[in-house]
Amino acid sequence: MIQRLCIIGVGLIGGSLARALRQAGACEEIVGAGRDPAHLQQAVDLGVIDRYETDIAAAVKDADMVFVSVPVGAMAAVFSALKDSLSDSAVLTDGGSAKGSVIAAAEQAFGQVPAQFVPGHPIAGIERSGVAASIPDLYRDRRVILTPLPRTDGGAIARVRAMWEATGATVTEMDPVHHDEVLAATSHLPHVLAFALVESLARLHDKREIFEYAAGGFRDFTRIASSDPDMWRDICLANADAILAMIERFSTDLQVLADAVRDHDSDKLQEIFTAAKQARDGFANTHLAESE
Amino acid sequence: MIQRLCIIGVGLIGGSLARALRQAGACEEIVGAGRDPAHLQQAVDLGVIDRYETDIAAAVKDADMVFVSVPVGAMAAVFSALKDSLSDSAVLTDGGSAKGSVIAAAEQAFGQVPAQFVPGHPIAGIERSGVAASIPDLYRDRRVILTPLPRTDGGAIARVRAMWEATGATVTEMDPVHHDEVLAATSHLPHVLAFALVESLARLHDKREIFEYAAGGFRDFTRIASSDPDMWRDICLANADAILAMIERFSTDLQVLADAVRDHDSDKLQEIFTAAKQARDGFANTHLAESE
Repeated sequence: MIQRLCIIGVGLIGGSLARALRQAGACEEIVGAGRDPAHLQQAVDLGVIDRYETDIAAAVKDADMVFVSVPVGAMAAVFSALKDSLSDSAVLTDGGSAKGSVIAAAEQAFGQVPAQFVPGHPIAGIERSGVAASIPDLYRDRRVILTPLPRTDGGAIARVRAMWEATGATVTEMDPVHHDEVLAATSHLPHVLAFALVESLARLHDKREIFEYAAGGFRDFTRIASSDPDMWRDICLANADAILAMIERFSTDLQVLADAVRDHDSDKLQEIFTAAKQARDGFANTHLAESE
Repeated sequence: MIQRLCIIGVGLIGGSLARALRQAGACEEIVGAGRDPAHLQQAVDLGVIDRYETDIAAAVKDADMVFVSVPVGAMAAVFSALKDSLSDSAVLTDGGSAKGSVIAAAEQAFGQVPAQFVPGHPIAGIERSGVAASIPDLYRDRRVILTPLPRTDGGAIARVRAMWEATGATVTEMDPVHHDEVLAATSHLPHVLAFALVESLARLHDKREIFEYAAGGFRDFTRIASSDPDMWRDICLANADAILAMIERFSTDLQVLADAVRDHDSDKLQEIFTAAKQARDGFANTHLAESE
């Protein structure tokens, strides 16, 4: 049971965590923190948080669990603002989509990464954002990856794990570097491709007509291009190396496909498309049966 | 009212047309044609067609409307097989996703493109295929593009238009070259990117883990990679020039984005992502309000 949870950044991710823990009866009091009082008041009005502070140091005082869910580019400033007020017995965790940069931000703010900090990442993004979109079931049957360091306190890890399990999520642990590579492949690259495609098409002179004739496949394929630009700018900056490596790999593979189109290489096209369909069908069958 | 409709290639597209016209009472008799008797018998058993022929010349005899929905690479062979049996008063149309190549196939088979041939393309693909997946509502509120030539008979165009309108579709006309460019942008490029991404990820050594941590965004983004490989191989060969041009354009734009990631160019990333989100949100608001 968490006595006082402080959520810094009460948007979709933080708000949904609050709603889930409340519904599970896993939390006594929830204090929100952020820069915008109107936004925080909305979270109070929606029943997502009990009260709020716009001063981060005041917000974390006496909290036994602090969850930071701000864009990864803002983590360093938040850690600096809270470090002198964080109780020694409190657990600090976050929801950033790139772990290497968040760990570096913690090291920068605290001098060394504190043992009470458990880097984490709930994999439940949807393209909506904001506290009004938060729901208690966002994490149900989703995955949360924790990326503790060797020096991270085992008790702190257990408490963060218990918090996420109370939301209905499945919690696993992973090395932070490996996390960033896996997410670059499964999440960051697809988002980059979707943004790049839509932006590219939007500059075509007949874009009105282009979008008019787009069908369901296009709609699904480009849905993630409606994601929050600020958040994704930060992720691209925070996980730049792994994302660049994936873009380069993809670009090379796309050129192989383009060469096959140019050469009218029927066998090669068939081979690529068949391998892709098999992998996608296998993915759908093993992991997504319930939601396809 | 169509007296006898002959559908060559009774899969998702042809089967759904049959079901829609039957439901609308717009067709007396439906004859299926194809190579596989077991498959055609299934279509009879499902009530999609009344009877079938495996000989194309026999199938089109006395039909007043002939709809060819085979992969675009098989169009030339089908046109050759039917040309001597097609009634002078019959209308011939097709459902190919690339019109230039289908028109070239008709010219090759007939000597010149017959005035009774109305090239068409129903934009209603879903990633499933086969007659068992066919539904009467596949074309409801969808678009069908006709790409007649100057020599195409006006009465033939009107009859094809009436057929598609009976399914609930909205019919528009377009120049074939322009159709192929628009579809390369909105459909063929996204499919190519989805196939390329999934195939690329499936070759990563830790692909099991990659797919395990993929979330909803990945699921939506890659759904079209489950499309029929044969069909998409044919489309890439049939619309190679327009698709290549779109791949090259996209690759250049992706490199601009990669450069921004490499240079930590926050403003450029923000600009690209914001433009993409605006275009995608606009697209969703104007065209997809009912299904998002």
